[in-house]
Amino acid sequence: MAILRHKKSKLVEAEEKRNDLGFGTQITDPDTRLLNRDGSFNVKRIGGNFWGRYNIFNELIICSWKRFFTLIVAFYLILNFIFACLYQAVGIEHLQGVDLSTKGSGFMDAFFFSSQTLTTVGYGRIAPIGFGASTIAAIESLLGLLIFALATSLLYGRFSRPVARVLYSDKAVIAPYLDITGFMFRIVNEQDRQLIDIQVELAVSMLKKQSDGKTVRRYYGLKLERSKVNFFPANWTIVHPITDESPLFGLTQDDLLASDAEFLVLLKATEETYNQTVNSRTSFHAREVVMGAKFLPMFSDVPGAGVVTLDLRKLSDIQEVPLSSEYHPHHETKN
Amino acid sequence: MAILRHKKSKLVEAEEKRNDLGFGTQITDPDTRLLNRDGSFNVKRIGGNFWGRYNIFNELIICSWKRFFTLIVAFYLILNFIFACLYQAVGIEHLQGVDLSTKGSGFMDAFFFSSQTLTTVGYGRIAPIGFGASTIAAIESLLGLLIFALATSLLYGRFSRPVARVLYSDKAVIAPYLDITGFMFRIVNEQDRQLIDIQVELAVSMLKKQSDGKTVRRYYGLKLERSKVNFFPANWTIVHPITDESPLFGLTQDDLLASDAEFLVLLKATEETYNQTVNSRTSFHAREVVMGAKFLPMFSDVPGAGVVTLDLRKLSDIQEVPLSSEYHPHHETKN
Amino acid sequence: MAILRHKKSKLVEAEEKRNDLGFGTQITDPDTRLLNRDGSFNVKRIGGNFWGRYNIFNELIICSWKRFFTLIVAFYLILNFIFACLYQAVGIEHLQGVDLSTKGSGFMDAFFFSSQTLTTVGYGRIAPIGFGASTIAAIESLLGLLIFALATSLLYGRFSRPVARVLYSDKAVIAPYLDITGFMFRIVNEQDRQLIDIQVELAVSMLKKQSDGKTVRRYYGLKLERSKVNFFPANWTIVHPITDESPLFGLTQDDLLASDAEFLVLLKATEETYNQTVNSRTSFHAREVVMGAKFLPMFSDVPGAGVVTLDLRKLSDIQEVPLSSEYHPHHETKN
Amino acid sequence: MAILRHKKSKLVEAEEKRNDLGFGTQITDPDTRLLNRDGSFNVKRIGGNFWGRYNIFNELIICSWKRFFTLIVAFYLILNFIFACLYQAVGIEHLQGVDLSTKGSGFMDAFFFSSQTLTTVGYGRIAPIGFGASTIAAIESLLGLLIFALATSLLYGRFSRPVARVLYSDKAVIAPYLDITGFMFRIVNEQDRQLIDIQVELAVSMLKKQSDGKTVRRYYGLKLERSKVNFFPANWTIVHPITDESPLFGLTQDDLLASDAEFLVLLKATEETYNQTVNSRTSFHAREVVMGAKFLPMFSDVPGAGVVTLDLRKLSDIQEVPLSSEYHPHHETKN
Repeated sequence: MAILRHKKSKLVEAEEKRNDLGFGTQITDPDTRLLNRDGSFNVKRIGGNFWGRYNIFNELIICSWKRFFTLIVAFYLILNFIFACLYQAVGIEHLQGVDLSTKGSGFMDAFFFSSQTLTTVGYGRIAPIGFGASTIAAIESLLGLLIFALATSLLYGRFSRPVARVLYSDKAVIAPYLDITGFMFRIVNEQDRQLIDIQVELAVSMLKKQSDGKTVRRYYGLKLERSKVNFFPANWTIVHPITDESPLFGLTQDDLLASDAEFLVLLKATEETYNQTVNSRTSFHAREVVMGAKFLPMFSDVPGAGVVTLDLRKLSDIQEVPLSSEYHPHHETKN
Repeated sequence: MAILRHKKSKLVEAEEKRNDLGFGTQITDPDTRLLNRDGSFNVKRIGGNFWGRYNIFNELIICSWKRFFTLIVAFYLILNFIFACLYQAVGIEHLQGVDLSTKGSGFMDAFFFSSQTLTTVGYGRIAPIGFGASTIAAIESLLGLLIFALATSLLYGRFSRPVARVLYSDKAVIAPYLDITGFMFRIVNEQDRQLIDIQVELAVSMLKKQSDGKTVRRYYGLKLERSKVNFFPANWTIVHPITDESPLFGLTQDDLLASDAEFLVLLKATEETYNQTVNSRTSFHAREVVMGAKFLPMFSDVPGAGVVTLDLRKLSDIQEVPLSSEYHPHHETKN
Repeated sequence: MAILRHKKSKLVEAEEKRNDLGFGTQITDPDTRLLNRDGSFNVKRIGGNFWGRYNIFNELIICSWKRFFTLIVAFYLILNFIFACLYQAVGIEHLQGVDLSTKGSGFMDAFFFSSQTLTTVGYGRIAPIGFGASTIAAIESLLGLLIFALATSLLYGRFSRPVARVLYSDKAVIAPYLDITGFMFRIVNEQDRQLIDIQVELAVSMLKKQSDGKTVRRYYGLKLERSKVNFFPANWTIVHPITDESPLFGLTQDDLLASDAEFLVLLKATEETYNQTVNSRTSFHAREVVMGAKFLPMFSDVPGAGVVTLDLRKLSDIQEVPLSSEYHPHHETKN
Repeated sequence: MAILRHKKSKLVEAEEKRNDLGFGTQITDPDTRLLNRDGSFNVKRIGGNFWGRYNIFNELIICSWKRFFTLIVAFYLILNFIFACLYQAVGIEHLQGVDLSTKGSGFMDAFFFSSQTLTTVGYGRIAPIGFGASTIAAIESLLGLLIFALATSLLYGRFSRPVARVLYSDKAVIAPYLDITGFMFRIVNEQDRQLIDIQVELAVSMLKKQSDGKTVRRYYGLKLERSKVNFFPANWTIVHPITDESPLFGLTQDDLLASDAEFLVLLKATEETYNQTVNSRTSFHAREVVMGAKFLPMFSDVPGAGVVTLDLRKLSDIQEVPLSSEYHPHHETKN
């Protein structure tokens, strides 16, 4: 029994140690990326309740401005059309001031009257008379207020979202780092707005052949030179020193490609306008890693100017650099 | 004195160690559930100050949409009715443009005039003349603005609540887990929206007979295989390995039912749209635990598609599975 | 130098250990309470820049509803009055539809026209003609929109404040606790809304005579039986066991009164509607501590009802109880 | 290889220990300040995408009130002018009620009609007739609603920003502290509003000559007497004791000036109205440090008044004080 208990604990302990960030071991299809470059996931949901699955308010918050305004204008036109039909149904003549010369002009005036009610402008040149038209107008004006309240909520929601405008270099590099080499990528804060208390986590995910011949996806945290800084006024080159403890020690570019390596970056910071935490993610696939290059400086220093100038266009500028031979202890791979 | 001090410390220390999550030891009525499936508590309050007890704004934030809109429409109708009465009181003739042919038509026009003022549409076909009607109208338009401001606040409040759309499997199972067995249940993120940094805590509450014959409710934290994941892109089967250290070790289904066992789940995550923390709770009563079953996969994999498909309808799908005999060391119960 | 360095460290270390919560040692006036029962501080500021000192928006957020509405109505009346004067200045006749029969009626119509513009109702029975009146009306309608935007902000601000409706018992008691005695007070969550992750800190502040004869105020943290609970569905009696390590060990009521003892309670919780942290504070002066009493239960249990009933009116109900003689080791005072 | 590995680790370890807060070692220009007194950074960005770089909503949130209102008024005037041109383009005669006597009066009436539509007042004395003018008016009223929604968002955003109104003394001092000396500065909470859980971090940045002759900027954390207080009801003098472990030990004013020393203050607190975290920063350059002075009290105590009075104007009041000779162990510098 003692031996049995020992064996149980070992498997359970090994399972607890297995780090997979939430992706699981089963995703072995090399064409499926875990994390897209923009930080989104590759999971599609089916089944489920429609209203539960889509948070429409959320969609309206995060969609593009172009889409947002298109939806608003379309909604406005459709609503006015529907109400114009309703006014026509109770009798256009109940809208005092409407031009009754043709069917079309009556409907058109009803359409514009509807827009004047929905937006609560209410000029009054056209106004409802009688129970039917007045009731529809009363409903429409209430609806107008509620829609306006909704528009205000949406606009505020869109603007106040804590978004980290962090730009990542197009490529990551493996460059000389002090005595050894390091896996590096660079980030810059796109805006003048302050980001403080920046924390970065880096992990690499690689396909590994198990002892039983099965291929599973393994995840390894990569220790950073510095994982936290107080301020982020300019740029930051994030470095994982490839010491002999690193999972990357001794791997060549071919090794990385063969194991479908994906480097996952998780960044957290506090943006200063509202003191909100912002999250940012990206990934670098083995194809996006350049072996033997280093980043060029982004500063345009003008001594004595009293100000440091940062050129955002130079974020991804790299230059080839030979790696020391100690980096390539041939055929030495690490699990 | 030394012995006395030693005895004092022991009782106090024991008390400090007693974990009850806030429910207390006195709830021993087996018909009273601690936590409902939807996460709400079973406590009813009486006495107390009305305004202090009900946070009306909060109620309006969390009630259903159907209820919310019903309240709005009812409020709108009642307010207009009240103001129509006020206009009638100062004399309907002070509303220029009102149809005075019958009492009813005058009141009706006053009602609609009130709605046009409250919503600030203000066509003007009907307009107030003289001090009395103008004053009431001035008050009503101010009121209209305040109510509208309130409606905007409520709408924004309703939409921006951080709600975790986490679905829990209908049942929990006790299934084979590696070498031993595990208590498991499954969760899925209903929406496409990201949830990150998910933390789960699991506790079980059981009635225990004390040495003095009294029955009290005890709480035990249950150690999880994994209690925290960075990402929650798909589903997650949460596992408590029933090792020999577990309070559940050796308990049969009858044991669980007899001790009115309730498994309490506390989940915390960060939703990504606003970076807000969301909380979610549920409980599984002993009746909702299936001994000897496991969860079926929810994925509909299409290799090479580049995307993982998750079928939400399969969340609670289980399949019977025999448990190993080591799980049932008969008559071996653990306090 | 070695001895000197040793002496320096000692004073600096002692200073670092001194805990005063931010109040300082100098407040020795026994009539000055550190913390009022409602949690506010007793500090009055003079000098300083007016706009910097008062955050008017904040004042409007936290003042009472009665005061808030009074300010709104007063502001409304004053603004309309001012604009009526402006319309009169450019010539009342420029407001088409105004009753010019008397000076008073003209001003009155201008007043109401102003209210119709400010609230954007704009009936149109009275409307501006010509540059002067139209300009003032254009300014007033813009102002009306801005004021309305402000009112919406204020209303939302008022409603969405995270406020912990935690009620404290009127008195604290020193009651028998297990083998010894304990300093206790009781709290209850006034609302049905959930408060979770509640943390409490308790400190006592007492005047002490130093070796040099000077009286200073000292602060001591008091260790709690339980300082954190996950849930707060009902009530919670917070207990500081008066072990021999406690600063209160052996003190009588007279000792507490003589040292102007004040018990400071700091409570932090997460309210569930918005997942916001809420803070609550109170203090119990020595005068508000009852020696030898315990709290009576607040529950009205109806077995089998499936629900626990809590009577909020019983929060402060106490009953006299004799303390054990071990509590009064006469003339034995600590620090 | 063993020696090589040992050497690698040393450099990497030294690099990990290097603390630079995010500013880097390269900023050696003595005219460039790291942190301005108001907490802003001295980095200018060029290149990059315009919309990405400027967050216009953010700018409107943080700009001064004067600038904000100027922008609103200008925007209002320009929009009305544009729409007046549009109405003129479709034909002014389509605005019923417009004064067509002169070109100018027509345009002026169109301008005011536009303002009445944009603000949704809509008197109706002037109203659109026909498809062209009605369409433009329908667009303008929708635009008016959206702009108003935006204004509400901006106003709320401006008001609800968590801003710490913490005032810093103009100068920092090096004063006698217990047995030794201390680097001190003073802060006060400008407002009556509560700030709680205040944490302060202090660092000094100095130019140092490396062994290879190169000058780099080094950063040192400075240990504080107290770095955290629960409450901040009045003022707080923050002290870094200059023990023999301090980087400042033995440095004279000339030493500080020569090494372009800059003291960086990072303050974090929770403001109580919304329970939001607020950040505040400042820096003291060596020029702003007074050697041999201490802060005068800010209190105006009136015993028995029951209230403590704080005079904000005395925040920076200092008085000369001789430092003990132990503070000046001549020519003894510490790296």
